[in-house]
Amino acid sequence: MRFQILATDKQTSARLGKLTLPRGVIDTPVFMPVGTQATVKAMTPEELQGLGAQIILANTYHLYLRPGVEIIQRLGGLHPFMNWPGPILTDSGGFQIFSLAKLRTLSEAGVTFRSHLDGSLHFLTPEQVIALQEAFDADILICLDECPAHDVNEAYVVQSGALTWRWAKRCQQARTREDKPLFVVVQGGMFPQLRREQAQAMVALGFDGYAIGGLSVGEDKETREAILEATVPELPVDRPRYLMGVGTPEDLVEAVARGVDMFDCVLPTRNARNGMALTRLGRVVIKNSEHAASPLPLDEACACYTCRHYSRAYLRHLYLAREILAYRLLTWHNLYYYLELMADIRRSLTQGTFPAFRRAFYRLRDNGGGASD
Amino acid sequence: MRFQILATDKQTSARLGKLTLPRGVIDTPVFMPVGTQATVKAMTPEELQGLGAQIILANTYHLYLRPGVEIIQRLGGLHPFMNWPGPILTDSGGFQIFSLAKLRTLSEAGVTFRSHLDGSLHFLTPEQVIALQEAFDADILICLDECPAHDVNEAYVVQSGALTWRWAKRCQQARTREDKPLFVVVQGGMFPQLRREQAQAMVALGFDGYAIGGLSVGEDKETREAILEATVPELPVDRPRYLMGVGTPEDLVEAVARGVDMFDCVLPTRNARNGMALTRLGRVVIKNSEHAASPLPLDEACACYTCRHYSRAYLRHLYLAREILAYRLLTWHNLYYYLELMADIRRSLTQGTFPAFRRAFYRLRDNGGGASD
Repeated sequence: MRFQILATDKQTSARLGKLTLPRGVIDTPVFMPVGTQATVKAMTPEELQGLGAQIILANTYHLYLRPGVEIIQRLGGLHPFMNWPGPILTDSGGFQIFSLAKLRTLSEAGVTFRSHLDGSLHFLTPEQVIALQEAFDADILICLDECPAHDVNEAYVVQSGALTWRWAKRCQQARTREDKPLFVVVQGGMFPQLRREQAQAMVALGFDGYAIGGLSVGEDKETREAILEATVPELPVDRPRYLMGVGTPEDLVEAVARGVDMFDCVLPTRNARNGMALTRLGRVVIKNSEHAASPLPLDEACACYTCRHYSRAYLRHLYLAREILAYRLLTWHNLYYYLELMADIRRSLTQGTFPAFRRAFYRLRDNGGGASD
Repeated sequence: MRFQILATDKQTSARLGKLTLPRGVIDTPVFMPVGTQATVKAMTPEELQGLGAQIILANTYHLYLRPGVEIIQRLGGLHPFMNWPGPILTDSGGFQIFSLAKLRTLSEAGVTFRSHLDGSLHFLTPEQVIALQEAFDADILICLDECPAHDVNEAYVVQSGALTWRWAKRCQQARTREDKPLFVVVQGGMFPQLRREQAQAMVALGFDGYAIGGLSVGEDKETREAILEATVPELPVDRPRYLMGVGTPEDLVEAVARGVDMFDCVLPTRNARNGMALTRLGRVVIKNSEHAASPLPLDEACACYTCRHYSRAYLRHLYLAREILAYRLLTWHNLYYYLELMADIRRSLTQGTFPAFRRAFYRLRDNGGGASD
């Protein structure tokens, strides 16, 4: 893995970069569509490439439970299995074990949990989580971590952070593929000082990249930004920084301004399936009756396949009829919007105009957001 | 509309034809994918064109109820509404009124029914059904008919057929667009003599094409073929014959041999969403555990997008995870198979080898069908 910083913004901490992996080059800041179960919901790999996606996510917890690592290995790894030739980052599954699985029990050794699918009992160690990701043949691996809830007390977060640190060390020692970059997850709850200390402790171990976990778990925007401002400055300048599971278009712009390089979030794909389109001007809730006979596209300035060919009236009809094409067309638009937003951010960084871009971004939303939200 | 017969088979009643409409040319025998709610489920129009679809169906009953004719008219008709530039045949809705709607009441004037969506009360006359199809700007219109159940007695079928004939006459008089071909539906239940008489009575009125309705409603294969053999010879040679809602690949081959030119059926698309792939060798039930680690495509000789890129193991994983991509990939394959089957039939008719094609078709299924069915 090679990570180059190509430009930095003068007024903010935003930076333009290039991450080179054996399976492809990733221009940062980057948004990574989420393919939890080895598919970015409703999309084909070719469509994702057409949208400009350079890397996607898959989830270790989900794929470990179904179809299981043996099947993916027998099919030659995740890439041939799902027909995606580009880089794949696999989440460690830590977040899912703590949010989806039942009856989880933590110990120094690892985590015991029941599958959310069939209640079966499982035990995973940090070492096994790395072995799984190597067996999947993922391109970026993530250390197992504990993701504490946003409302736990400081003592819990201290203890949890110490365990995540010891697990990170074991993950580092367990890896057998030095060619596959290993990212660690910086936790620390909603306590800026703990975040700082956790970041410093992880940096002392030394990783290929640094993920910031435990955000977008219910905290408010100000807390989220304060946590980013406490964490990012502790991370090495020459390593990619990945903000996990965040967020809205506004969150992406603000995190870029605070020095983050990589993002993933289910928001564009999940909201699409719930009938919500995200646009430059704000949100469009397609089931609203105001769109019933509207010949307008979701966004008149958008050049995506959906906006070039389909009216809000048709999209609303498909959505009310629960037609698969509704989910496809809304997902297509939302991912296009997210990937274009990141491309616009990168263009502004190339041109040295990120602060102006950021102001224009908010101006559009303030002017257009009311109508359809 | 222009319909040319380009070749006829010497041993059977199969024929090769070309149906020319303002929006496109249709090579017959043809399979028309079903787009009930102004979308062929799970597919985009461009994908359908890529598969070689030359005409699709939409359903008057469904579109009348939702989104309603006013909205489709305001969007410029069905074609711009759904982004499909080619010909569209609209079913009259007769079959749906008799199979889906609640509390239907027939009278000489028309049919009163309650919507299956919200229970609202509606009354439609034959004249209104033609006006709806003209307002949709469909390319082939169908007269309103009553579709009797397959187990009603002869007296009912006689009476019903007489009403369908009087309605057909009113549809003919109600049309205002002579440029849009109007097809009539020949009913007659499972009584060959009534089918003959109904066909003769409809031919006496004179229509642009003849649909054969009321089949695939629960009768056995022998009855279905006997009804076709009673009906088709009564129809004019120089008009297209359309067998409504039928059927399996075997049904298509047998109906072509009996002189049918046009088909539609939800089977390839609906079976796909239920995890069943249709192939040259028979059916593949993708959830079966035998496919769990199979690197094979659905059909090794198939050149469709799904078979070129995805294993049975991956398709099974997607299907068990209820991923939208499962429905897309299986629909893609099944429609490809149906459209290729019709293209193969047409090639054999061009070459004068339809009987040999028909024997080879059954040989493959007999040899291959057992493994995955």
